[in-house]
Amino acid sequence: MANSPTGDSVTDRLVRVLETFTPTRTAQTTAEIGRRAGLPSSSAHRIVAELVAAGLLERGEDGRVRIGMRLWELATRSSPALRLRQLALPFMERVQQRVREHTQLAILEQDEALFLERLSGTASGANVTRVAGRLPLHASSSGLLLLAFAPRELQERVLTGPLVALTAETITDPRMLRRKLDEVRTLGHAVAPGSMEAVSTGVAVPLRDETGAVVAALSVVLPREAPTEPALLELYRAAHDIERALSGARRL
Amino acid sequence: MANSPTGDSVTDRLVRVLETFTPTRTAQTTAEIGRRAGLPSSSAHRIVAELVAAGLLERGEDGRVRIGMRLWELATRSSPALRLRQLALPFMERVQQRVREHTQLAILEQDEALFLERLSGTASGANVTRVAGRLPLHASSSGLLLLAFAPRELQERVLTGPLVALTAETITDPRMLRRKLDEVRTLGHAVAPGSMEAVSTGVAVPLRDETGAVVAALSVVLPREAPTEPALLELYRAAHDIERALSGARRL
Repeated sequence: MANSPTGDSVTDRLVRVLETFTPTRTAQTTAEIGRRAGLPSSSAHRIVAELVAAGLLERGEDGRVRIGMRLWELATRSSPALRLRQLALPFMERVQQRVREHTQLAILEQDEALFLERLSGTASGANVTRVAGRLPLHASSSGLLLLAFAPRELQERVLTGPLVALTAETITDPRMLRRKLDEVRTLGHAVAPGSMEAVSTGVAVPLRDETGAVVAALSVVLPREAPTEPALLELYRAAHDIERALSGARRL
Repeated sequence: MANSPTGDSVTDRLVRVLETFTPTRTAQTTAEIGRRAGLPSSSAHRIVAELVAAGLLERGEDGRVRIGMRLWELATRSSPALRLRQLALPFMERVQQRVREHTQLAILEQDEALFLERLSGTASGANVTRVAGRLPLHASSSGLLLLAFAPRELQERVLTGPLVALTAETITDPRMLRRKLDEVRTLGHAVAPGSMEAVSTGVAVPLRDETGAVVAALSVVLPREAPTEPALLELYRAAHDIERALSGARRL
């Protein structure tokens, strides 16, 4: 495929254009997109025009460009992970109704926990999670759960990499993190008091496929001093029902 | 940008590759993708490899290719419409808990109703709607609602286009559809008994922005003979609360 003088492929440049959009920057002029993507003005105009023609971007009445619904539609309707999300949703709703705190579904994605869904009700507490947002594996309960059951080489990569402190209680010592992962495997679930936010405790249980492999983490965010057992019971019940529904549906 | 001998842009070819994935075809070989996208084998291999490198596609252990989570993440985290969905979700949960039937959020997108969300609980009835799925404007309650408040030229385009019957009760006569749209505007909401499925009645209310423009339809799918008033009351209450939350958040 045609490469630019700097050797990046057209696909790279398209992705760079899309990546200039963020949760807090949802509308931009083509000039801004070009500058942020590091593209010459003529390339930026051509790529944006083509993406608008294809519906992946949309141009508003104000002339600014936004992410097009076609992109979301293409991604959502064909993704195996998002079919898991759809299947899990009714059972997540049940957890949310009974526990009345943020209820979340996350998968392992490029060494981070990627959140596929978050249900919050109208009266849940603090929570930094965002749908389609990511959290580091060593800090969130979902991340610790996914990391504990991840392939050994991924665990070693995280254990030997930088462990950023998000609060005073985030585990940043590799030996302590190793012990925490052992604890998660022994308990079968993760409890993370104060490691993401001082005021909250995250609890996460695994979702397994038919082979027993962990494919996702189901979690709730509780007020710091709340008992964890009632939430864990609801999470395990939901995980059981989701796994049964999964084995009825086609393989992920 | 480099065009192929047939004159389509690289962006077109990328989109054609992505569009070979469907809700029922989530994993394909590169050869299958090339054939379905109408691309020469060498182009298909190059484009797929670049999309895999960028994370927009993923290659599984079976060698087959799937839609990558990166695509969904890019689309979801930056889309104004999906921020509306996130804001509406807690209030949709409340409707679902009280009415205990499928609760849906749809927007107008390229002359169809595009469903941003569907909450179903664990005991809801029949429903053909899918998240990121589309329904024709003249047949679903959400579609009728969105069409009734759409720009005049879109209404005329639908009224003069083919009106496909999904059931014996779908309105396919343009004059009857015109009357139905009048009725929706007079009532302020749409009731569509049997027009999508003989066993169900859809009811939809508008979500309006601060200027009063209708930006989305909030709907439930009831068993055919159920009374509509309790569901409509909950829908209007939710719409009111979502609109208040919207005016508090930044403008869509």
